[in-house]
Amino acid sequence: MREPRHVGLETPPSPQSAVEVVNSGGKGQIVLACEHASRNVPDEFDNLGLDAPALESHIAWDPGARALGLRLSELLDAPFVASRISRLVYDCNRPLQVEDAIPERSETFDVPGNVDLSTEQREKRWRLCHEPFHDALSDQLNRSGRGSALVTLHSFTPVYFGRRRDVEIGILLDEDSRLADEMLSAARTHTSFDVRRNEPYSAADGVTHTLKIHGIENNLPNVMLEIRNDLLATDVQVEEVARSLSSWLSVSLSKLMPRMELVQ
Amino acid sequence: MREPRHVGLETPPSPQSAVEVVNSGGKGQIVLACEHASRNVPDEFDNLGLDAPALESHIAWDPGARALGLRLSELLDAPFVASRISRLVYDCNRPLQVEDAIPERSETFDVPGNVDLSTEQREKRWRLCHEPFHDALSDQLNRSGRGSALVTLHSFTPVYFGRRRDVEIGILLDEDSRLADEMLSAARTHTSFDVRRNEPYSAADGVTHTLKIHGIENNLPNVMLEIRNDLLATDVQVEEVARSLSSWLSVSLSKLMPRMELVQ
Repeated sequence: MREPRHVGLETPPSPQSAVEVVNSGGKGQIVLACEHASRNVPDEFDNLGLDAPALESHIAWDPGARALGLRLSELLDAPFVASRISRLVYDCNRPLQVEDAIPERSETFDVPGNVDLSTEQREKRWRLCHEPFHDALSDQLNRSGRGSALVTLHSFTPVYFGRRRDVEIGILLDEDSRLADEMLSAARTHTSFDVRRNEPYSAADGVTHTLKIHGIENNLPNVMLEIRNDLLATDVQVEEVARSLSSWLSVSLSKLMPRMELVQ
Repeated sequence: MREPRHVGLETPPSPQSAVEVVNSGGKGQIVLACEHASRNVPDEFDNLGLDAPALESHIAWDPGARALGLRLSELLDAPFVASRISRLVYDCNRPLQVEDAIPERSETFDVPGNVDLSTEQREKRWRLCHEPFHDALSDQLNRSGRGSALVTLHSFTPVYFGRRRDVEIGILLDEDSRLADEMLSAARTHTSFDVRRNEPYSAADGVTHTLKIHGIENNLPNVMLEIRNDLLATDVQVEEVARSLSSWLSVSLSKLMPRMELVQ
């Protein structure tokens, strides 16, 4: 196995499996997921023909998202399911049918190792990455025989195709807007960041695959959070965002629940 | 009416009524209460014979507790019920039957205006202070016809009878320890402050009157929080404590609830 490089905060987990599950069975009401937690490319793919700068950039992963997930997992006592393989190998937030599940080009980078794959090669990538990630996520969402809420964690680059993005935190939703609506209505109470609905992406960009197959399909409240990655560049920043989100998420979710139907 | 003095952060509300209710009907699952929010002494009591230093000290009120309650009320979308009259007139966290409901002496201060009161005078104080405070609290706890959780907010002096107190946040409980237990087990995740169970006081000191008559009586989860008042001396400190508590409280409370019994 290739020794993973360490970039900034993140120490990618050793790639002995395609998914890591932190705080499995945690008793909080939320399950956290991060499809783009790692920039690891297993040896067999020969770095997909990319050089180090490309493999360390946001095209390979969402920098800071895993660190945020680990801290939120503690604060919320939430299971956290994170992919251990770069989205350039297979993007766990995409179904097999779409081209950019295994992108031949990502932003300004060509990805030589993803060109002209056979159906068998694509299906093999799906089994390697997508299947274990989503099986693990299903397990955690159903860990008590009752449903939980699903929150997916992403980060985005401040500058995309040369254009500066002003949005700092994006609240993204698919057909079920319950949790997103509660978060948006409480945003100003919980953060001074620039919070926007369905920015920098929306369901129309095909980015809500995980929300669809776990949240919408099972009628579980769900939301996708996009944090601009310059807000997750240091431990102190991650702590600030995590503390804000833990309160914001748990209070927002509590609005969807009846009062005091207590476990006796 | 006497013009209230302003000490530090706190601007006591004008004493046109004995209780203030902030965010009445708020949709969060918690109701906040502060029996010692104000150091106001209505004119009729002629300052109880005390001088300004005594009336501005912690014997008259819990400095910082109201500021904390106001911010937590926003973060949790919680109703916040706060007394507008000093506990030296009547301590809303005491039943009429106990001596220190209207203390003749508080720590090192004699309170001349509280000496040798008649039964009628004591009952009049009770009707002035205790009755409206607890009526308002009952209203908020039952605001939707369903129960809520009760959290009472207090601050304590770092030095008491000349002795330094090390505890920074006290989690106090009466017979129902559910919410306190969840908070204590999650303390290290949410704060680096020195958190202790039943310090600097406990139910044995007679400080859980409000928990008893609202929480225990109605089987609502409840907890009393004591914050050392030097941790609530500036806006920045209040914000830090409030953010920590909002996450800590709401996640702890969520553990007592079944998963996803959603309002349809």
